[in-house]
Amino acid sequence: MTKAVVLLSGGLDSSTALAWAVREKGYCCYSVAFDYGQRHRIELQAAARVAKAFGTADHKVIQVDLAAIGGSALTDDIDVPKDQNETGDIPVTYVPARNLIFLSLATGLAEVVGATRLVIGANIVDYSGYPDCRPEFLHAFSQAARLGTKAGTQSHDMQVEAPLIHLKKSDIIELGLRLGLDYALTHSCYDPDTSGVPCGHCDACRFRLQGFAELGETDPLTYGSSE
Amino acid sequence: MTKAVVLLSGGLDSSTALAWAVREKGYCCYSVAFDYGQRHRIELQAAARVAKAFGTADHKVIQVDLAAIGGSALTDDIDVPKDQNETGDIPVTYVPARNLIFLSLATGLAEVVGATRLVIGANIVDYSGYPDCRPEFLHAFSQAARLGTKAGTQSHDMQVEAPLIHLKKSDIIELGLRLGLDYALTHSCYDPDTSGVPCGHCDACRFRLQGFAELGETDPLTYGSSE
Repeated sequence: MTKAVVLLSGGLDSSTALAWAVREKGYCCYSVAFDYGQRHRIELQAAARVAKAFGTADHKVIQVDLAAIGGSALTDDIDVPKDQNETGDIPVTYVPARNLIFLSLATGLAEVVGATRLVIGANIVDYSGYPDCRPEFLHAFSQAARLGTKAGTQSHDMQVEAPLIHLKKSDIIELGLRLGLDYALTHSCYDPDTSGVPCGHCDACRFRLQGFAELGETDPLTYGSSE
Repeated sequence: MTKAVVLLSGGLDSSTALAWAVREKGYCCYSVAFDYGQRHRIELQAAARVAKAFGTADHKVIQVDLAAIGGSALTDDIDVPKDQNETGDIPVTYVPARNLIFLSLATGLAEVVGATRLVIGANIVDYSGYPDCRPEFLHAFSQAARLGTKAGTQSHDMQVEAPLIHLKKSDIIELGLRLGLDYALTHSCYDPDTSGVPCGHCDACRFRLQGFAELGETDPLTYGSSE
């Protein structure tokens, strides 16, 4: 049975990617979340809920202090933008080299558990400004992971799979619903209130709400009253 | 002035790589050490001493919990082998994907400080069993880092440099001595005693002592009495 390490933030995309790896591909999945100094720890609780719902072989939380690197609204004291228009620039919510770092840690875990697949919910439709969401990056990373690990060197088989890479948000949600993912378990908001209620106005909330709307479905989450 | 992020463990190799980046290349260097759950924290003190001696623009310590990944004598409760013969296998001191993970974190830092060089003391003479010390891995990583970062995408310039890759230990020491590195500041031992005195018998100590001996120089460190 093919083993996969699935990067699971507890958000809509990564949770859908896990649903795909478990129910569509039939992989034996090891999920991993990262405690990276994100301002909102509620993400980690969502990841654990989703991992449990899909019965992953193991769910690990790896601590990595990305705040020490700095440079992002998600770890630094930079304000998360609300209701912004597209500028074409790389957004301030971009965490420098985050996918590179997370995939590298997942590769270490893959080496230990004997997995040959690294599954990531990367997507270029909503995150076109993030260089480490692009297929050419993921392809180059697969090559590096193959050459840099014992498992990859011996089997010539170590590969990033990004099942959502070309899907728009409504297609991702449609896929997850078809595979039985309960989106009430997931968390997307960059700027929830103290009890974890999503704001409805940051990029993550807007993309999510728009995705459900396009599909004619209702997001099971409750949003803040200011929405 | 070219900026470089230098991976600095405080060991002999990485300290020499920093000496090279500062004194041979004239880079503006940002050094970074990793607090990764290594059993011997004395490494981190050595890294800070060496960074200070070379006046790096900044010295950061990034926490990353590699022990959560497991699978190595350097982070797990696996005994460090002593006075062993070469077996050709990957040694138990191999930390899965360590260079991949460390280079990824260094890439995040490079993105933030505007560096285009990642300098690593990787070496294939002593570490031929570590897949993530090989030139083909470092080359593939450079490509991934270029494609996965804003800086790399915009400048097409993001590159791993491994000045020691083909040098044997005595050549590394000769280079460091020529560049004014005081090896008394460095630490190599995998298994020091509680006050930090190196054992003289693990692979790291043996390679180091042999290097100084071949060069007809004396290692400025004091070794344990059992040696």
